[in-house]
Amino acid sequence: MDRPLDHELTRIRQELLRMAGLVEQMIADAMNALIDRDQDRANGVIAADKGIDLLEKEIDEACHAVLVRRQPTAVDLRFLVAVMKINNDLERMGDSAVNIAEAVEVLNREPPLKPYIDLPRMAELVREMVRRSLDAFVERSSAKALAVCASDDAIDGFYKQLFRELLTYMIENPKNVTRALHLLLISRNLERIADHATNISEDVIYYVEGRDIRHSAGV
Amino acid sequence: MDRPLDHELTRIRQELLRMAGLVEQMIADAMNALIDRDQDRANGVIAADKGIDLLEKEIDEACHAVLVRRQPTAVDLRFLVAVMKINNDLERMGDSAVNIAEAVEVLNREPPLKPYIDLPRMAELVREMVRRSLDAFVERSSAKALAVCASDDAIDGFYKQLFRELLTYMIENPKNVTRALHLLLISRNLERIADHATNISEDVIYYVEGRDIRHSAGV
Repeated sequence: MDRPLDHELTRIRQELLRMAGLVEQMIADAMNALIDRDQDRANGVIAADKGIDLLEKEIDEACHAVLVRRQPTAVDLRFLVAVMKINNDLERMGDSAVNIAEAVEVLNREPPLKPYIDLPRMAELVREMVRRSLDAFVERSSAKALAVCASDDAIDGFYKQLFRELLTYMIENPKNVTRALHLLLISRNLERIADHATNISEDVIYYVEGRDIRHSAGV
Repeated sequence: MDRPLDHELTRIRQELLRMAGLVEQMIADAMNALIDRDQDRANGVIAADKGIDLLEKEIDEACHAVLVRRQPTAVDLRFLVAVMKINNDLERMGDSAVNIAEAVEVLNREPPLKPYIDLPRMAELVREMVRRSLDAFVERSSAKALAVCASDDAIDGFYKQLFRELLTYMIENPKNVTRALHLLLISRNLERIADHATNISEDVIYYVEGRDIRHSAGV
């Protein structure tokens, strides 16, 4: 493990995990801002996005530089391709966290529509998927990555259920419309974060095993 | 232009443009299904998604194979990185077209909420952005690509205006809620397609000029 390439790849891995940690924090903060009605925390999420955008750019440039300079092959090449994709998914997760924080801003202006029971539960499951997809990356475990993909259906179920419930609230009383709509936006963004965690898991499998499982029937 | 690499890159370019053509058709069909209240056309968009998913996989694998086998450098390497990203954006545009078609399915069960004036206009602008981003790719024109990025603000303006208008409809009358919500989903997906066209344009600039303009202040 003393090739210059190895040092460069280790550094890229560290930067990616640093970015992942920041994005995980943004998702947690955005949801806590909702539950605790904490506007400062929501603002913090919105402010954090700029740093994530810059990190994405830096990591992407580092990958390009290594590709050009070292012309890596096999697993090293797959690692870099996977990192570029994971990097993009993390940045989009950050965007979703910002969308959630912006919806929280609107929601906190009015009393809560109803006790938020399903939404925090959905958020917990989504955050677990994100964590497990990154664990799979760190441990190079395609088994763990596959398990993440399997959770995606549960999230879709949550989203559909919340959609129906919030639609009912909107129809029942016009006073509910704005709040229900923003809660719907939050659940939609949670669902998208789960999609990105699934993408990351698929990239881990490609990186570890050299095969592409996207859109295949068995998953 | 007689290196084996050139033939491979040309083939990848052709496949990507074939995929782009199919995705453009999906977006057009999804919007026409709304305007003409044509359920068959909406179903066609939903059915087309499978082919797009397969094409994305094929193009990605072709890029990986060339990376591994030929170890391209400079502009060829940037071309392949850009193709992998554009490929992903096209696939996601296809997903958005499917989301639109699914919303159309719900909308066509009831009489139209109101004349669709802004939505087709927004869709026309979005489709133009998509077309121009792909023209920029074909012509290797970073000037054209930059012009696409500039249109994104107009789309965001359309979305915000439609959001306010449809929210008002929902609050006015509970009977409007389901339809207004699905029109909102359609405008949201149009906005996302425009985002992907912007991403493609940024990738074109990276490919042509070797610089990354994402999230920079001047754009």
